[in-house]
Amino acid sequence: MQRVGLYPGTFDPITAGHLDIIGRGLKLVDKLIVGVAVNEAKKPLFSLDERTAIVEEETAKLHNPRGVEIEVRPFDNLLMHFAEACGAHVIIRGLRAVSDFEYEFQMTAMNEQLNREIETVFLMADVQHQAVASRLVKEIAKFGGDISSFVTPSVRAKLLEKYK
Amino acid sequence: MQRVGLYPGTFDPITAGHLDIIGRGLKLVDKLIVGVAVNEAKKPLFSLDERTAIVEEETAKLHNPRGVEIEVRPFDNLLMHFAEACGAHVIIRGLRAVSDFEYEFQMTAMNEQLNREIETVFLMADVQHQAVASRLVKEIAKFGGDISSFVTPSVRAKLLEKYK
Amino acid sequence: MQRVGLYPGTFDPITAGHLDIIGRGLKLVDKLIVGVAVNEAKKPLFSLDERTAIVEEETAKLHNPRGVEIEVRPFDNLLMHFAEACGAHVIIRGLRAVSDFEYEFQMTAMNEQLNREIETVFLMADVQHQAVASRLVKEIAKFGGDISSFVTPSVRAKLLEKYK
Amino acid sequence: MQRVGLYPGTFDPITAGHLDIIGRGLKLVDKLIVGVAVNEAKKPLFSLDERTAIVEEETAKLHNPRGVEIEVRPFDNLLMHFAEACGAHVIIRGLRAVSDFEYEFQMTAMNEQLNREIETVFLMADVQHQAVASRLVKEIAKFGGDISSFVTPSVRAKLLEKYK
Amino acid sequence: MQRVGLYPGTFDPITAGHLDIIGRGLKLVDKLIVGVAVNEAKKPLFSLDERTAIVEEETAKLHNPRGVEIEVRPFDNLLMHFAEACGAHVIIRGLRAVSDFEYEFQMTAMNEQLNREIETVFLMADVQHQAVASRLVKEIAKFGGDISSFVTPSVRAKLLEKYK
Amino acid sequence: MQRVGLYPGTFDPITAGHLDIIGRGLKLVDKLIVGVAVNEAKKPLFSLDERTAIVEEETAKLHNPRGVEIEVRPFDNLLMHFAEACGAHVIIRGLRAVSDFEYEFQMTAMNEQLNREIETVFLMADVQHQAVASRLVKEIAKFGGDISSFVTPSVRAKLLEKYK
Repeated sequence: MQRVGLYPGTFDPITAGHLDIIGRGLKLVDKLIVGVAVNEAKKPLFSLDERTAIVEEETAKLHNPRGVEIEVRPFDNLLMHFAEACGAHVIIRGLRAVSDFEYEFQMTAMNEQLNREIETVFLMADVQHQAVASRLVKEIAKFGGDISSFVTPSVRAKLLEKYK
Repeated sequence: MQRVGLYPGTFDPITAGHLDIIGRGLKLVDKLIVGVAVNEAKKPLFSLDERTAIVEEETAKLHNPRGVEIEVRPFDNLLMHFAEACGAHVIIRGLRAVSDFEYEFQMTAMNEQLNREIETVFLMADVQHQAVASRLVKEIAKFGGDISSFVTPSVRAKLLEKYK
Repeated sequence: MQRVGLYPGTFDPITAGHLDIIGRGLKLVDKLIVGVAVNEAKKPLFSLDERTAIVEEETAKLHNPRGVEIEVRPFDNLLMHFAEACGAHVIIRGLRAVSDFEYEFQMTAMNEQLNREIETVFLMADVQHQAVASRLVKEIAKFGGDISSFVTPSVRAKLLEKYK
Repeated sequence: MQRVGLYPGTFDPITAGHLDIIGRGLKLVDKLIVGVAVNEAKKPLFSLDERTAIVEEETAKLHNPRGVEIEVRPFDNLLMHFAEACGAHVIIRGLRAVSDFEYEFQMTAMNEQLNREIETVFLMADVQHQAVASRLVKEIAKFGGDISSFVTPSVRAKLLEKYK
Repeated sequence: MQRVGLYPGTFDPITAGHLDIIGRGLKLVDKLIVGVAVNEAKKPLFSLDERTAIVEEETAKLHNPRGVEIEVRPFDNLLMHFAEACGAHVIIRGLRAVSDFEYEFQMTAMNEQLNREIETVFLMADVQHQAVASRLVKEIAKFGGDISSFVTPSVRAKLLEKYK
Repeated sequence: MQRVGLYPGTFDPITAGHLDIIGRGLKLVDKLIVGVAVNEAKKPLFSLDERTAIVEEETAKLHNPRGVEIEVRPFDNLLMHFAEACGAHVIIRGLRAVSDFEYEFQMTAMNEQLNREIETVFLMADVQHQAVASRLVKEIAKFGGDISSFVTPSVRAKLLEKYK
């Protein structure tokens, strides 16, 4: 059986923590869809096109020994509807901290009411990446702080460009 | 002694979780006031009049074997002042998750400084309703997801009307 | 309607935090049963008889303006069975911290499966008493520390007697 | 690629919550090993043989549309060593509440130091089963409470036998 | 060695909880800088100049037996850069509740990547002040509630002036 | 002013996480006392003498650029009494996870009732060491797992000796 996983997020921009979770997800599925949420309400720094392009560029560089197919797709509908449209068997979520956990618990319980066939699995990022949040990375970048442990050099360059 | 309880909320709109807590509250008091907070800062989807009317309609349908009087009242002042004006002996709060708990702890401790005579009691919703949040219900409805396990058919119709 | 509340605990010994919750409970019910759990597995410092006698002595001194009847009863069966035998309408629990909350959530959800008619209500102790735990009070007393902010003078004397 | 999952536990006895997680796990892997920890320090109520037999009996009854192979194996060594010996690609853990989460976070982070190839994935039980804990089930059974929502009829019979 | 501490915040306005932490901080360092964050995104009620003046006025009244130098400085850059510019050895943070803790954990872990020499130390406010939050104080003041247990008389007067 | 800090623990045995906190503590005080709690109730694997000797040996190897005096002292009385006897101005605690936080909150609030002059400060270990717990290190060592990322080579040798 070919297993399809969906890893959704805003990725504004993609961090070392996201890439860690994607790397782990590659071990669990035969095809991984990275879903880039439009999320206009959050007023992302990078446009949807930029975010999608960056995710494509960064995931292409990942260590992927089994050659799992990675597809990056923007989406603007209900996560569960998008998962169904993708033919996903599992939704992959990263788990960081307690506040995260509570929100995820709520989301997962409600999502399950919508479709009981698609499982949500949680993966824990490496401890080094537990604390990396896109929001804080942007804040540090904006004030000229060093973000090289939180994003790849290429993403760092793009962030600095934004705040120039 | 006739006990008066106050259950405050924004109810935008009232969910199965709120109705569960109200049903439990009916066992504890002789009169239950459901206080609908104006809460304009949150930019509610339903107007104050709509929310109040929906709460009235839905609470009238509740199983109420002791015939406890239920009064639905909008309010736009400090919760503790409203509770005093209502002659409430207890404020009833639903308790869902950890993040909730922290906020409630803070609110309760500060409220107690304002009036030590009015007790805050916490009730836990049925596990099925623990994860239901108005915010997520609206998000799902907006994208055309099925919300029939989270709200009554009548509230569902009103939500769909809003997002038509 | 006469409302009966049950406040269960081990009370080894009763602390300022327990007395705070009992004082709050007196505002909610017309009769309050304080259930003293045998709890032999925990190897209590005070015998069941001693604990019951201390709870009786201390609750008799409480401010009780409405003259609510307080009954102190030891119990050695399932909490829900004891609540039924007492004719309790509500079980009263004190809520302190997150760890507490989690345990209470689990207990309450399981208890509800046993009897849906008896509600569990949570009360929050005054912030001054949030951190008082019988276990720590005993530890401090054992080493000769000053416990006068955590228990009444009479309970303090009994504790010192134990560790003499 | 054939994926092997390991779901470890003490299973003293297996509850509706465990079975829910196993049912979910069956969707994720091609072979599922249920590892029954000896765990003598916890002084289990059921012997290792009894627990293993019960898990075998109960998992055989599960809805298993893809016919995933389920193997039940006792173990008495380090979880990570056992996972390696089983050829497991993923370790499956159920996630219930915050306290759980903290312990799991610690375990997972330490396990990762031992073997970075084996991923730990977390699944969330259905809300109805979130609060079911073997320890509380035994406590309720011991006092003659009704445990039929927490375990299967067959496990219930075995528990009642123990407490006869 | 002369130790310099930095206590950063928005102080909109300074509460009894903040003053409690500052009082504790005075025991730990030889010079204490109170950094007032511009934080325009939060749309503070008091201007930066007002907040700075109030913090100066209130900290001057603190019990300061060792005569520790207190300097109040506004800042609009990255906290870690400001700390470096101040020559701070430690950043002092107040710790209130779980949600706080999670945020602080994330901030501290990211800050440490920026400068490993400057330690973050956490102090716990007195239980009486644990629940005091500037946001709730303002809400209560706005509705005419009594805020005299949360702020000093002078800050209270300034808040009432704002909401007149 | 010469500042004295006390870092208490059971240290059975001292881990990389403890050493991380001690290293941070060296930046805050002029003299650091590491208090080794007898803690017989926990039935430590290493004797008090062994634990004290290991702590002395390991702390002597720490990077200590300011040459802060480190004293290792066993204690068997109330922490606050020991702190007073040591002339400590601050008690240093490591902060790891939520469960920790709750316990620490309770301890700190009760300790403060005993002596308001001695401050408790919390330091956060490096993320790499957040998950290291003596209890789990021992469990892994017992089963022959690799503990070299959790303790120093010398402590590792002593642990292996115990489980030979």
